[in-house]
Amino acid sequence: MTDCWFTEMHEHDAKFSIQVTEHLYSEKSPYQQIEVYDSKTFGRFLTLDGFMMLTEKDEFIYHDMISHVAMAVNPDIKRILIIGGGDGGTAREVLRYDTVEKVDLVEIDERVVRVCQKYLPQTACKLDSDPRLRLYFEDGLHFVQEMPNQSYDLILVDSTDPIGPGEGLFSYAFYQHCKRILSEDGILINQHESPYYPKDAYEMRRSHSKLKATFPIAMVYQFHMPTYPSGHWLFGFASKKYDPIKDLQADRWNGLGLYTHYYNTDLHKGAFMLPTYVKEGLNNA
Amino acid sequence: MTDCWFTEMHEHDAKFSIQVTEHLYSEKSPYQQIEVYDSKTFGRFLTLDGFMMLTEKDEFIYHDMISHVAMAVNPDIKRILIIGGGDGGTAREVLRYDTVEKVDLVEIDERVVRVCQKYLPQTACKLDSDPRLRLYFEDGLHFVQEMPNQSYDLILVDSTDPIGPGEGLFSYAFYQHCKRILSEDGILINQHESPYYPKDAYEMRRSHSKLKATFPIAMVYQFHMPTYPSGHWLFGFASKKYDPIKDLQADRWNGLGLYTHYYNTDLHKGAFMLPTYVKEGLNNA
Repeated sequence: MTDCWFTEMHEHDAKFSIQVTEHLYSEKSPYQQIEVYDSKTFGRFLTLDGFMMLTEKDEFIYHDMISHVAMAVNPDIKRILIIGGGDGGTAREVLRYDTVEKVDLVEIDERVVRVCQKYLPQTACKLDSDPRLRLYFEDGLHFVQEMPNQSYDLILVDSTDPIGPGEGLFSYAFYQHCKRILSEDGILINQHESPYYPKDAYEMRRSHSKLKATFPIAMVYQFHMPTYPSGHWLFGFASKKYDPIKDLQADRWNGLGLYTHYYNTDLHKGAFMLPTYVKEGLNNA
Repeated sequence: MTDCWFTEMHEHDAKFSIQVTEHLYSEKSPYQQIEVYDSKTFGRFLTLDGFMMLTEKDEFIYHDMISHVAMAVNPDIKRILIIGGGDGGTAREVLRYDTVEKVDLVEIDERVVRVCQKYLPQTACKLDSDPRLRLYFEDGLHFVQEMPNQSYDLILVDSTDPIGPGEGLFSYAFYQHCKRILSEDGILINQHESPYYPKDAYEMRRSHSKLKATFPIAMVYQFHMPTYPSGHWLFGFASKKYDPIKDLQADRWNGLGLYTHYYNTDLHKGAFMLPTYVKEGLNNA
């Protein structure tokens, strides 16, 4: 084996590296640099512009947590919009619910979808095999601007960081349109960055201040993501009426019999219990 | 600045590196290789045999979580035994309680204490300034073997991994003696490794199987530790009678007015809500 490593800078003076057994794919799309590698410990993994997006080994954590928290608060969700999520992992999870009628996935970069379909079937497996799913290759902000009021029950913002093509998805205008196109009992979940390293914590506060200004309920929950910087990552939960803890339908969700390797309805409640320094960061946002 | 990095292998093919601004100290003690470095993002940090023990920047997380969970379940704890913990951070936290009357700290390697007193006053600050604290430089297993029954209300096992000098602290005999020297309402907290990387998860299961066989109540709680492998770390909570959630004295603990940067009494409950794969690993232990 050649001594080849993928390295991501977590800070200017801290880095995480994974030994690569095979560099499977490389492409500069119109939007970003797409790479797929293979490794022993993490299996195949996808990077965009040098940032780790997912590994086969720990993607279940991210995709459990972006999908099932909202579904357990409102198991009657039928119409779902995924913004980003071109790897297909989020779509795979929400399509496990028989009650879901429609999933629109809006990914700006078609090449991400095509590359994942070829090299990451573990996440992309449902992108061309479920008639409830429809793919749109366009800008997420533009998509929500054009959409009629109350078109969805759930919006999942499965975006990259707010640099490059994901930037518009962290804007105030974007959240305003999301609110408008959500039903009265709608929920929005968004990739909410991390509280630990300063640049991530800055984006966490920026994102939270906009969600708080837009939705009557805007909360944040955490999970352990080994291959992301610091391992401490967040999603936002925003809603017009649901409180994610008081309105959790634990018995009903457990009655569905879906096996999830990370998520469970006790963890659901625990994930909203944040460390003091994270709460302070969010309160000052 | 020279291009000098401290690197820890988190797996045989995954590593985390921190740029070193100054290599402050190096010593091979009779027990282990002790190093102290300085860095921009993490401040000073201590390694033993090449494993990260603590950084000035994130040690508050570890020390909050090893100390305050037990103190909030039983705020009447008076007599505390710390096994390991030569950096002083755990002692610093428990000595914040005026009601604590005695803290015995048993560290096998006196050099760790002396090095931390010189280079890491942030954690070692109380090791020579509080009359309630007494230092013992001896093997923790030997110490608990010699101790009379019911000598302590709380034992905090603040050990390194079960390789090298910390090994005996993961033995069945050690836990048996801990139980014997704890009062009837005694609590034991131990460094419980991590659920993620296979070798850490193996030690997690080994530790849990022994605690379950020894104490009527043996539970596990999690926290986000950015500089430890995967960032997902655990402590064990073992007790003769207290359930860490049902018996949490949240109002009383909050009434003490202790500011903690990571711990709070909501997080306390949330920390015991574990991901499915972690619960499965513990159940199979």
